[in-house]
Amino acid sequence: MDKSGGMVCVGLDPDPKRLPGFLRGEDWGRVITFNKTIIDATYPYAAAYKLNLAFYEALGEHGWETLRETVSAIPDDCLTIADGKRGDIGNSARFYAAALFEEIRFDAATVNPYMGWDSVEPFAASPEKGAFILTLTSNPGAKDFQFSGEGRKLFEAVAAKACEWNELGNIGLVTGATQAEHFRRLREIAPDMPFLIPGVGAQGGDLHAVVENALKGFPGGGLINSSRGIIYASSDTDFAEAAGSAAKKLRDEINEILD
Amino acid sequence: MDKSGGMVCVGLDPDPKRLPGFLRGEDWGRVITFNKTIIDATYPYAAAYKLNLAFYEALGEHGWETLRETVSAIPDDCLTIADGKRGDIGNSARFYAAALFEEIRFDAATVNPYMGWDSVEPFAASPEKGAFILTLTSNPGAKDFQFSGEGRKLFEAVAAKACEWNELGNIGLVTGATQAEHFRRLREIAPDMPFLIPGVGAQGGDLHAVVENALKGFPGGGLINSSRGIIYASSDTDFAEAAGSAAKKLRDEINEILD
Repeated sequence: MDKSGGMVCVGLDPDPKRLPGFLRGEDWGRVITFNKTIIDATYPYAAAYKLNLAFYEALGEHGWETLRETVSAIPDDCLTIADGKRGDIGNSARFYAAALFEEIRFDAATVNPYMGWDSVEPFAASPEKGAFILTLTSNPGAKDFQFSGEGRKLFEAVAAKACEWNELGNIGLVTGATQAEHFRRLREIAPDMPFLIPGVGAQGGDLHAVVENALKGFPGGGLINSSRGIIYASSDTDFAEAAGSAAKKLRDEINEILD
Repeated sequence: MDKSGGMVCVGLDPDPKRLPGFLRGEDWGRVITFNKTIIDATYPYAAAYKLNLAFYEALGEHGWETLRETVSAIPDDCLTIADGKRGDIGNSARFYAAALFEEIRFDAATVNPYMGWDSVEPFAASPEKGAFILTLTSNPGAKDFQFSGEGRKLFEAVAAKACEWNELGNIGLVTGATQAEHFRRLREIAPDMPFLIPGVGAQGGDLHAVVENALKGFPGGGLINSSRGIIYASSDTDFAEAAGSAAKKLRDEINEILD
């Protein structure tokens, strides 16, 4: 965050159908070229990059190589987040964690809390790696279970458990920008924990409310992710420049609200 | 199930470190050979095969090919289940579903309910494909959130929602064998839904209680998965024969309890 002067996380979620038409080659080759160009253009303004693994898995047998090439192209002073929302029994979770942290060398991963601690633990076992736990998500389906419970809601129970589990100080919470009205409550439970906040831009989250309720004055701080709003800022030959401008604009807007 | 005369699901979760030592070559090549041999040996007794994606992702850039080769080797009259426990916002879930159902041609997938309906819907959108929703899992961490809630517990809420969502009749529940004491309650909520039941064998689930409480007399039926208990039945040159025998034994034990 110091190096970029801000809290922007760039979401590298490349849909081959939405890449600029003049990029030639196979889908996976176009994605690598696209990602590297976006990384170069946004690097000065980015504290982190988040890669949603769904978009890489959809590339089939070249997905893994595309993931590896992309992560290799991200400078070491940016955090890299594998957004796979993994969650499985301990034995399987260890394999997922090894693939993401040792094979690809991601710094952190998003994990799903439904299966509890032994499914999260392999992602938080090393102080050099970190886990962001899904808590309150930005999508319409968040209402189905995350607010269940009389009195304490499930998302509050998850935040409270995450604090208990955070012995190494390497756990954060995924909190969708569309849920900013509940961020004050989350900050009462977890004032010191970094929030990873997707959902501004295409998903319609209110940046002002997000910064006021989750970031301003809270020691945990966090990262605000934008994917489509940055990487598809233009689909023309100026796509890199437009992505850089969009990342800079988001960084500056956040900083203005913080000041 | 008719073709195999039973309810056995074979879990193809190959850990390269546990494969027979005489199989030569790179890890991924050994896994393909191993899987194909296990499939041939267990096919007469297997209604389904479940592949835990963690073990394939851990093979890195050859993981996808290994997955594809394995699924291709499974005869069409067996159900193939991608056990990836995916769960993401609708836009990303569509990419995951396309990768598993169109690229690899799995018949079904396991999904995590935490993010609600739009994260599940792409896996249940076609009547020819199916989704098994994590409900009550077999691992120690199941206690962290799945039993939360005064009155109705989270796992009960998930089962009830799954019934609502099941308009196409292609949704099932993942219910861990170690939780058999709660299966009666689940069957009150979802008598007609197939249960996918992992956790007998290495995880210690009680087969008798599982069959009595979840399968006997319930129209939904289900599949009982065994992974390590079948595929590692022997690590010697007789590993295929031993796997076949273990699958047959499990099938027959289940049928005996059913009778």
